[in-house]
Amino acid sequence: MSYFRSRRRFLQASSFAFGSGALTAIPSSQTSAATSDSAASKAAPEDVTRQLARYLVSADWNSIPSDARDEAVRSVFNWVGCCLGGAREPATDRAISALQEFSGNPQATILGRQEKFDILHAALLNGITSHALDYDDTHLETIIHPAGPVASAILSLGERQRISGQEFQQAFVLGVEVECRIGKAVYSLHYDRGFHITGTTGVFGAAAAAGKLLGLNEQQMVWALGIAATQSAGLKEMFGTMCKPFHPGSAAQNGLKAALLAARNFTSSERSLEAPEGFAFTYSDAVDFSQITDGLGVTFEVSKNTYKPFACGIVTHPIIDGCIQLRNEQSLTDTDIENVSLRVNPLVLSLTGKTAPQTGLEAKFSIYHASAAAIIRGAAGPLEFTDAVVQDPAIIRLRNRVSATVDESVSEAEAFVTITLNDGRMFEKHIEHAIGSLERPMTREALEQKFMGQAVVALPEQQLENVMALCWDIESLADINELTGATVPA
Amino acid sequence: MSYFRSRRRFLQASSFAFGSGALTAIPSSQTSAATSDSAASKAAPEDVTRQLARYLVSADWNSIPSDARDEAVRSVFNWVGCCLGGAREPATDRAISALQEFSGNPQATILGRQEKFDILHAALLNGITSHALDYDDTHLETIIHPAGPVASAILSLGERQRISGQEFQQAFVLGVEVECRIGKAVYSLHYDRGFHITGTTGVFGAAAAAGKLLGLNEQQMVWALGIAATQSAGLKEMFGTMCKPFHPGSAAQNGLKAALLAARNFTSSERSLEAPEGFAFTYSDAVDFSQITDGLGVTFEVSKNTYKPFACGIVTHPIIDGCIQLRNEQSLTDTDIENVSLRVNPLVLSLTGKTAPQTGLEAKFSIYHASAAAIIRGAAGPLEFTDAVVQDPAIIRLRNRVSATVDESVSEAEAFVTITLNDGRMFEKHIEHAIGSLERPMTREALEQKFMGQAVVALPEQQLENVMALCWDIESLADINELTGATVPA
Repeated sequence: MSYFRSRRRFLQASSFAFGSGALTAIPSSQTSAATSDSAASKAAPEDVTRQLARYLVSADWNSIPSDARDEAVRSVFNWVGCCLGGAREPATDRAISALQEFSGNPQATILGRQEKFDILHAALLNGITSHALDYDDTHLETIIHPAGPVASAILSLGERQRISGQEFQQAFVLGVEVECRIGKAVYSLHYDRGFHITGTTGVFGAAAAAGKLLGLNEQQMVWALGIAATQSAGLKEMFGTMCKPFHPGSAAQNGLKAALLAARNFTSSERSLEAPEGFAFTYSDAVDFSQITDGLGVTFEVSKNTYKPFACGIVTHPIIDGCIQLRNEQSLTDTDIENVSLRVNPLVLSLTGKTAPQTGLEAKFSIYHASAAAIIRGAAGPLEFTDAVVQDPAIIRLRNRVSATVDESVSEAEAFVTITLNDGRMFEKHIEHAIGSLERPMTREALEQKFMGQAVVALPEQQLENVMALCWDIESLADINELTGATVPA
Repeated sequence: MSYFRSRRRFLQASSFAFGSGALTAIPSSQTSAATSDSAASKAAPEDVTRQLARYLVSADWNSIPSDARDEAVRSVFNWVGCCLGGAREPATDRAISALQEFSGNPQATILGRQEKFDILHAALLNGITSHALDYDDTHLETIIHPAGPVASAILSLGERQRISGQEFQQAFVLGVEVECRIGKAVYSLHYDRGFHITGTTGVFGAAAAAGKLLGLNEQQMVWALGIAATQSAGLKEMFGTMCKPFHPGSAAQNGLKAALLAARNFTSSERSLEAPEGFAFTYSDAVDFSQITDGLGVTFEVSKNTYKPFACGIVTHPIIDGCIQLRNEQSLTDTDIENVSLRVNPLVLSLTGKTAPQTGLEAKFSIYHASAAAIIRGAAGPLEFTDAVVQDPAIIRLRNRVSATVDESVSEAEAFVTITLNDGRMFEKHIEHAIGSLERPMTREALEQKFMGQAVVALPEQQLENVMALCWDIESLADINELTGATVPA
């Protein structure tokens, strides 16, 4: 059922009720009350936004269960590694060169870099670095990459306020809760329309988390969510360009700005999520508000966070996993291979169907490149998505022998890989859940290996060992500056 | 016809073509090419974004006809007056108090204030002041308020670059052209979905105008439009709150940021407007791309700009005009009046149907308040939308005797007002086009009266006379700083 059409039917019904052309004197108060009551009762609960705000203001550390706390530590650990891994990417360098002239006082750290910026610019830049390699984390129900918008907003704010690690983690859990719940309420038709959900919902998560650290009261938190709603943005069309990592950065910056404005009583709608022309109905063709309110404070979305073992779009991971497994099991070399056939859910091809990527960024959206690189190099980390590897003739030769078919009966989590050799032999692999999924989570060791593998571009190994230790121990840090300070290059 | 549905049909068709379940080896290059070609040919012209960028880069002052130049001067004149009028509004004060700690070097002026900010913050703040009184300008075909996003972006950039008044005006005309053409392409279903079109399209106008001043090449202008697209935001749900003026401010800031990033080769999609998941299809349920490309460089949207004679939503203007005319013609006083009946297009009530506004801001979205104030005070300027006037018992008494009916046969430009007196007499007025419309444009004298009437809150009259003279003479200013400097309070 399309709520958009439902809303239009409501508008038609209301103009019918008022009559057409007759100058009947309906008291103005009745007219308007009928309008808003009717819209509210048909369209959505009255106070979704306020319920969320009330919860955020009252939630405390003790109300967060240990499994959520633990997964939040893994999430932040993984996020710091991704920020360091992206610290030297061209998207980061270009954003810094464009914006540094306009930064305010150097209050906040860009993880892995020496320059400091005001907290709003730092939020943007850490958000960009964290997603620049497309290697971060995924809330699988919504395909939101949850850490980037939230952690980037509160790290810089937290540095300025010298908060403890526990305060940071509490705000992080709440911010992730908000973005993922709002995401679940509008997924999948919101995503299907063309919106990059990490950007569009991330701004709410960043506002909520920053608002918590600023100590907003309930009314201010309602406004913060409203100011976030009216900045919600990000298009999937940008995949494969520098604007993709710009989305979590922009969400972090704008969410932080929303919280700062709300703290000074800058007003917004008080029903920004559920109103007939609020975020949900405007940005999606179907909405389920119970996803926002049911079990609030009881279940925690951060518990379902997952971490990418491969530095590219999550939908390609089952294929890569299958290719690497077949390569290793059969000791395959590319020159033995006649062709590679992939069978996948239609979403996979619509998101990552680039056949002839020219750059590393584009290659992250090519199952053809990802398969070829996985088979030839036995990996799909950041090193497999450099411009040089994308233009490697051996990779291109194998990539051109990869074909894909879509199959509605294959879930988004699974994939079938068939490799046919020149001698006629054929090997098949069915991956039900890729490594890194909820069913096959990355171990602590795998997370450390991933961290080190990417972060080494920013800092020497010994310094990284210290940063990793601080991340694992984040709940006991007295001042979040201990962590940020440890990431600055000597 | 809904392009959204059309796009969904395309996706179904493509998955049908690929087969379902059979492991047929379609060469990957064919598969993907079919996907993108098919989407492009069915959905939209190939290169709308690039056509626009190419025009923007090549356009020069001599190619802008004199009627467009003249209306651009009136537009900027009116915009400066609105900025000064909004310089002391609570929305402005709160935004400044929230954000000033994070500003970079004081490079740019907030018109009518002493504080200076970096150009990105200045763009935001001038955008807020310009729309804070809801008294600015309107491109009637789209209900875009065009000057705010564009002029706010290029004033601060222009100050930093010490551009001439002519350069400013050229960039202004081009920015308005971009936002209004994109607005026409998606209006009205984009607006109907819930988007505040001044925010959503203003960001493109700001990016284009700022990009012109930065001397972007064609490729960079394509990116600037893309970075703008992926920041497009603003909800109508925010009407009556401080977020409404935040929208043109945010559009100015984000559009300027888009141009600055593009100047450093920060990349985006190259088809951000027309791609199947680009701005147009994602943000609207119907699109007409010919509105963007037809007559580009020949007709100019700025020529159709209009200026608000009343400090509230444009759809209320025919009613206010009618009330003031009846009041003056019949020498009405509020205690004589039994009731006031309004008959209007349904849009009027859906946008401005607040029956019991509590604040001046809310009252701008109340035809009930607007009618009562117009009858009692004979005006509807900023002074009629103060909190005190909204809570005046005489205004409330008359407001409660105003009723409204909607009538599809009444256009958005017209209104019927019927006033019934206690003695049984009844007076009617049919306004076909309100004062300030294209059909009844404001004279230069009326614009000056409006300017002075609102700007006097920021600066003494003598200083305002000088600012007005500089605005009328803007095309001949050697340095735009002559104008900005003249607006700083002593």
